[in-house]
Amino acid sequence: MPYAEYQRLTQKAADFNNAAAVLSWDQETYMPPKGFALRGRQLATLASAAHEILTSDRYAELLQVLSKDKSLPEDARINVLRSAEDFEKAHKLSPQFVEALSLQTTVCFEAWMQARETGDFALYEAPLQKMIDLKREQAALYGFENHPYDALLDDYEKGAAVALLDPVFIDLKAALTPIFRKIMAAPQVADAVFSGNFEKEKQLRFTENILRQMGYDFAAGRQDYSEHPFSISFGPEDARITTRADENNLAYMLWSSVHEGGHALYEQGLPPAQYGMPLGAACSLSIHESQSRLWENCVGRGRAFWQFFYPQLQSIFPENLDPYTPNDFFRAANRVAPSFIRTEADELTYHFHVLIRYEIEKDIFSGKLQAKDLPDAWNAAYQKYLGITPPDAKPGVLQDVHWAHGSFGYFPTYSLGSLYAAQFYEQALKDIPGLEAQFAEGNFAALLRWLRENIHQYGRRLTSEELCRRATGSGLSSNAFIRYLENKMALVYPAAFGNS
Amino acid sequence: MPYAEYQRLTQKAADFNNAAAVLSWDQETYMPPKGFALRGRQLATLASAAHEILTSDRYAELLQVLSKDKSLPEDARINVLRSAEDFEKAHKLSPQFVEALSLQTTVCFEAWMQARETGDFALYEAPLQKMIDLKREQAALYGFENHPYDALLDDYEKGAAVALLDPVFIDLKAALTPIFRKIMAAPQVADAVFSGNFEKEKQLRFTENILRQMGYDFAAGRQDYSEHPFSISFGPEDARITTRADENNLAYMLWSSVHEGGHALYEQGLPPAQYGMPLGAACSLSIHESQSRLWENCVGRGRAFWQFFYPQLQSIFPENLDPYTPNDFFRAANRVAPSFIRTEADELTYHFHVLIRYEIEKDIFSGKLQAKDLPDAWNAAYQKYLGITPPDAKPGVLQDVHWAHGSFGYFPTYSLGSLYAAQFYEQALKDIPGLEAQFAEGNFAALLRWLRENIHQYGRRLTSEELCRRATGSGLSSNAFIRYLENKMALVYPAAFGNS
Repeated sequence: MPYAEYQRLTQKAADFNNAAAVLSWDQETYMPPKGFALRGRQLATLASAAHEILTSDRYAELLQVLSKDKSLPEDARINVLRSAEDFEKAHKLSPQFVEALSLQTTVCFEAWMQARETGDFALYEAPLQKMIDLKREQAALYGFENHPYDALLDDYEKGAAVALLDPVFIDLKAALTPIFRKIMAAPQVADAVFSGNFEKEKQLRFTENILRQMGYDFAAGRQDYSEHPFSISFGPEDARITTRADENNLAYMLWSSVHEGGHALYEQGLPPAQYGMPLGAACSLSIHESQSRLWENCVGRGRAFWQFFYPQLQSIFPENLDPYTPNDFFRAANRVAPSFIRTEADELTYHFHVLIRYEIEKDIFSGKLQAKDLPDAWNAAYQKYLGITPPDAKPGVLQDVHWAHGSFGYFPTYSLGSLYAAQFYEQALKDIPGLEAQFAEGNFAALLRWLRENIHQYGRRLTSEELCRRATGSGLSSNAFIRYLENKMALVYPAAFGNS
Repeated sequence: MPYAEYQRLTQKAADFNNAAAVLSWDQETYMPPKGFALRGRQLATLASAAHEILTSDRYAELLQVLSKDKSLPEDARINVLRSAEDFEKAHKLSPQFVEALSLQTTVCFEAWMQARETGDFALYEAPLQKMIDLKREQAALYGFENHPYDALLDDYEKGAAVALLDPVFIDLKAALTPIFRKIMAAPQVADAVFSGNFEKEKQLRFTENILRQMGYDFAAGRQDYSEHPFSISFGPEDARITTRADENNLAYMLWSSVHEGGHALYEQGLPPAQYGMPLGAACSLSIHESQSRLWENCVGRGRAFWQFFYPQLQSIFPENLDPYTPNDFFRAANRVAPSFIRTEADELTYHFHVLIRYEIEKDIFSGKLQAKDLPDAWNAAYQKYLGITPPDAKPGVLQDVHWAHGSFGYFPTYSLGSLYAAQFYEQALKDIPGLEAQFAEGNFAALLRWLRENIHQYGRRLTSEELCRRATGSGLSSNAFIRYLENKMALVYPAAFGNS
């Protein structure tokens, strides 16, 4: 039974990858500092064990035989198809290269953590340069037609390339700029509601309550603290999130939790019977991101959401919140202003943060920038697009973990995620009458059902584009996002949009 | 370079085993309940990956070549020797068998957790019987001369066998019985000092303080809660412990932490340069246990220890502890009384708990007992040796995790650990003048140095017996333990020993 053997090998590789994910989760939540060195080699061993299986001659042989087998049921056929696509890409990297990359990831992550603590980019520069060199090597191993960066982009979003993304970012910039100008010219929204003294533990309990209400299953996941919030899954029955809290700012944890919760709901919604197989995996990073953004922005920063949750939040922190109404809170949650930190940016300026990283990454891989040039390039870009310059590297070039992880080419998927999120949300509003009225009653079940049916259940059956077409009737476009943003901004900044 | 290749393979197997250890740690501390099913297969994959390497033809070949290589330096020679011994044992199990055993461990552990929660042994019976059948198969695969149990005992203590252990337990029973009788006839020591209301978080902080003072490096480890306290190591730079707390009884967490801390100090003291190699691993389970027991009993239940720590503890829980003196506390900490739970037993009756498990395990593997018979056999043995019968299975046959883990043959090492601990401690007292006076000042550095030099640094260089001879001048014997126990009991029960 070649299919059974193919499945056994694929799932075995998934076991190694999921074990590595547990080690990574531990590394970023509970691991004591001296654990780094050996954790690095343990992760490298697991990564190379998975890679060895998925690039083995036997696996290649099975894929070849199965690709020609017309008698396979459809599910099996799609699993084989996706695995063959992955194989083609993965077998371009040697086990030695994969191990070196994994080792460097640990070294680089540790350096980033130390640099971030002190704000001293110099601690990070050499490991980051080595990481860039490795990724450049990876791009060469993958091969590319137009731009080395294309090879890396494709890793995170199949088919993505500079030639395709440049127009998307140009369009987005063109649409967002006039909205941004109008808002900047209008009276600013107050966001003092988020400032004060909010006990961490109470914040955590409140976000757990939100997550539960959203449908996140705590018997198949958990929420912990980490330096940089993330979601990670070891299978659909153990999909975890992390968050970070600031006692003086309520906003950090609130939207981190809802955002990561959106990711984790996707993982919990993947079919368990397809564990480790392409049909048991998420469609793509951009679709993954669409789930987190739909929950964070379309739902979690919506008026209806806070009609339900604000009174609860008020009763937890009465001294801070009694002076404010749900509408004050809603408007503050959607305040637009240039800022340094991507993960704390509003829905509009967020895309400038992504654009900056996208352009820097392009320049790194076209050879224009080295690690040592990044702090200056970073600051110049922030000045150019957002009119601000970070005071030092901590809220500047050191803010993201991605480069430490070697994840060059990842950032653009965040913007694609926003576009898909708006498209899905627009469709869900059409398909489910009174959806936001349900939110106002704390009921998110219909939305989650819609996402399960239209997105989650498919795993990697469809491409991002196919999935979007099937769910909404049209492919990727920024129109829904712009419509959504204009509607919301008219509520947040009525003066700017002439509805005051 | 065959040695370099041998080392690479050995350390790669260690990576898989240490990764599995991280997954196990997570499973028993933070994993959400639905995570069990997939965690089981992930652990099985890791176990079989390690096993595959260590039983591979290439590994066999390397060991054969290296065993004959007279030019190897001594360290390398010993690593090869120990690996060859392990190989001989491990290659008797097929990868399929190892995977089946690992899978069953997860199933059985989960069933044990559920049974323990409800006290219903029936939930555990079938998985346990399947585990017993697998262990019986394992004994047959290992082979044995006299008793199937010998094959399993040897897994935990090289060379241990019924013919060797029966006399040890008979001697121990003979020596302990009269001491026990004298104590039972004397006025009982009060232990009300442990009862009251002790906030968990404060207990945890206090035990962390003790651990730090003992020399445990929190930058290379951590302490968490778990159902059953354990220590686990992923390398000398990440050696963790768990503990459990009872708000109404101070004793649970105190001695769990010191005990597991003793284990972890051993792991932290192994040479990091020998990571994953026999010289980087603990000598044996009994020597491991000697370290936990030396710290828990000889040190942590000693008078000098509490001269230092009792005033601190008193200042944390003044309402509860103000009425008591350090000597009250010391005596209560060494109170002898029959009880149901092994891990809470005093130093004397503890060995009856072990004896009971030893005899039951012998009977399981001689075919006299099945899983279904265990609750009755258990209760009968407790009545016979300790004069008490557990009210139900929870404080009875369900109390230990060992059988759920398939660790039959493990329990006897606990008693051997006590005997070695007493021998080492007697020697350390001779070698370090004023040792206990140092304890009374909170200074444990000289003791830890003695243990590092005489025990930890050796890894698996010596057998338990050789290590004991080198450190103390004589081999395993119960004499030191009996001397130690009589001395202490004379202080705890002066009336019984004529020194009142």
